[in-house]
Amino acid sequence: MTPVFANRIGSLKASAIREILKSTADPNVISFAAGNPAPEAFPTEAIAKISNEILTKHPISALQYSITEGYTPLRDRMKAYLKENMNIGREFDDLIIVSGAQQGIEHSCKVLCNEGDTVICENPSFVGALNAFKSYGVNLVGVEMDEDGINIEHLEAALKQNPNTKMMYLIPNFQNPSGITMSLAKRKAVYALAKQYGVLIFEDNPYGELRFEGEDVPAIKSLDEDGIVIYGGSFSKVLSPGFRVGHVTAPKEIIQKIVVAKQTCDVHTNIWSQIICDEFMKQYDFSQHIQGLQKIYKHKAQLMLDGIKREFSPQVVHTVPQGGLFLWCTLPEGSDMMAFCRKAVEQNVAVVPGTAFLPDEETYSTTSFRMNYSTPTDEEIVEGVKRLGALTRLMF
Amino acid sequence: MTPVFANRIGSLKASAIREILKSTADPNVISFAAGNPAPEAFPTEAIAKISNEILTKHPISALQYSITEGYTPLRDRMKAYLKENMNIGREFDDLIIVSGAQQGIEHSCKVLCNEGDTVICENPSFVGALNAFKSYGVNLVGVEMDEDGINIEHLEAALKQNPNTKMMYLIPNFQNPSGITMSLAKRKAVYALAKQYGVLIFEDNPYGELRFEGEDVPAIKSLDEDGIVIYGGSFSKVLSPGFRVGHVTAPKEIIQKIVVAKQTCDVHTNIWSQIICDEFMKQYDFSQHIQGLQKIYKHKAQLMLDGIKREFSPQVVHTVPQGGLFLWCTLPEGSDMMAFCRKAVEQNVAVVPGTAFLPDEETYSTTSFRMNYSTPTDEEIVEGVKRLGALTRLMF
Repeated sequence: MTPVFANRIGSLKASAIREILKSTADPNVISFAAGNPAPEAFPTEAIAKISNEILTKHPISALQYSITEGYTPLRDRMKAYLKENMNIGREFDDLIIVSGAQQGIEHSCKVLCNEGDTVICENPSFVGALNAFKSYGVNLVGVEMDEDGINIEHLEAALKQNPNTKMMYLIPNFQNPSGITMSLAKRKAVYALAKQYGVLIFEDNPYGELRFEGEDVPAIKSLDEDGIVIYGGSFSKVLSPGFRVGHVTAPKEIIQKIVVAKQTCDVHTNIWSQIICDEFMKQYDFSQHIQGLQKIYKHKAQLMLDGIKREFSPQVVHTVPQGGLFLWCTLPEGSDMMAFCRKAVEQNVAVVPGTAFLPDEETYSTTSFRMNYSTPTDEEIVEGVKRLGALTRLMF
Repeated sequence: MTPVFANRIGSLKASAIREILKSTADPNVISFAAGNPAPEAFPTEAIAKISNEILTKHPISALQYSITEGYTPLRDRMKAYLKENMNIGREFDDLIIVSGAQQGIEHSCKVLCNEGDTVICENPSFVGALNAFKSYGVNLVGVEMDEDGINIEHLEAALKQNPNTKMMYLIPNFQNPSGITMSLAKRKAVYALAKQYGVLIFEDNPYGELRFEGEDVPAIKSLDEDGIVIYGGSFSKVLSPGFRVGHVTAPKEIIQKIVVAKQTCDVHTNIWSQIICDEFMKQYDFSQHIQGLQKIYKHKAQLMLDGIKREFSPQVVHTVPQGGLFLWCTLPEGSDMMAFCRKAVEQNVAVVPGTAFLPDEETYSTTSFRMNYSTPTDEEIVEGVKRLGALTRLMF
């Protein structure tokens, strides 16, 4: 029997970039296409020590069923951490532990968006979130970004043109894929527009802790007097993505519905990894650990930026991220970006074509591509950028 | 702002049984309301040993991002295990690791069922699955069970009455909540009807390994020459529910769509727990471990059945499970089952009112309740059954 799938899944198409991503399986290919934390960023000894303590002293707590809302000590710790460090969380808010911030996005969409509702996102934006929205038949509208974040005039135009907008999905810090950080003025403007037009904001902040230049900018959620911001955070970039532990802070009514959605999806997040996150923050100096990560990524970003400056054709412009894992290169207008990416693979270097991050490939286009500096080794960064540079000078 | 939720979430109502389940938080209450494995069923030393090996010898493999399909050695091992032990898996099938079988049910529904499509289930059935279906606006139709499983005449009538039926959701072994096992004749009849009416079967088998009486009955999936059966299994009852590791075997096209759904939901299942499942099956005698579990549950089930025989009013009938974690008691027709359950809580004993397992509480009714014997201690089983028995003799 040939199965007939649900309509909602039809809009999730296999992308043209798959062939390029496939190339990264080849060990000869230098991959700037991933988004993995650097292997040296994992506090492996601490995790092994904590895990051993849990599994020898009170193993049942890590092995038995647990509650959907998340491991209570970790929830309490994260609430205090977010309040103290980012002024996130008010009386009307609650926090749920999710299986990676990705699940927070998916479940928020599931409980809030009907088919055909509009979600406004930055263009480009994180492909995982875009696909989560598409998987519920949401109408995705992309708004261009300036150097300091989403273009506010275009955002307001999009809100006017789409009165069925339910949510804006934004990554204010070191955006994936662009590396752009939204200014405080724009965060305030975005919040004011959301309030004015009666739409929610999903603020996705997986990279916020990884700032290696400049000063922290307050989270949009810290401005949220009205209960219109859903804030997603993650342990993936600061402890371990293999854990699949993230968290969502939002008004209680929304968290209650996310609990219902999560109950029907994975019941609760792996409990061992939740306990490790909690114990790591309790037993170790978390801010010192974060400073160590910032140092690793500052070095890698600088190495890539120096290489680009040295090797790339000046026709290729790029962002200069103040944190996070990615930067964004743009080829001259009218260039065949896909051809460039394919030629890069021929040189055994993989980058992600910008098309992967468009709200949809029919309506939007781009001559940009994403480069990741967290996963490759220093040697790979230097050599890969050199090869890409030669290609840019040959082509542009 | 008061959030407006998606329509699909509206049908998920807080149930009347919550007040009774809340009572189980009281340490003075003997709870027969859970579904947790017995604490003594966890191979804690083996898990601690394996975990320590992983985290000291190759920690990055357990901490880094992994692939959505699941940890390849575990996928291969499970395919071989299911083929060898249950004749499950043909050329056209594939297997994905999911975050508990619950996620397999949710994702199968997401990729296959449009709003308004009908899913036929046993009545009563597993509340987690029913809620997953409801969360996509599915029309749930329940079919009564006989002692040997779903009533085939009523099932065919339901298929005729609901030409938009997409799927049957069935738990053939030691069904939750009823404890009933479907006979081979009925499995064959169900399969033939699914084929005839062009509907899929989701065969949920979390308890299959926990048979402590009688002979194994072939899985419906083992009959599947036509690619119409989706089979869900789990490590929750045989290793650890805290892991959140399950698996789904289905035709490749369906697995591919589930991969897409999972990618947008939690990216992949916690990788540490996947490696532990694999290493446990590799390093230890899995069938010997399963035999140990069967012994534990046989003892506990027998203790509860003996108590019921000794203490309960003969007016109360009950199932005699050959495996799994639950049995199902039915009060005389016309009884106020909820009143009985409330009075039980007054005696500090909690059971789950059967209404929790109805496809919906408006269309269907029941005088039954579910009793779990895996979680309570032996002393609690004896004492709790005694108190319930006194209540049955008082009321019926």
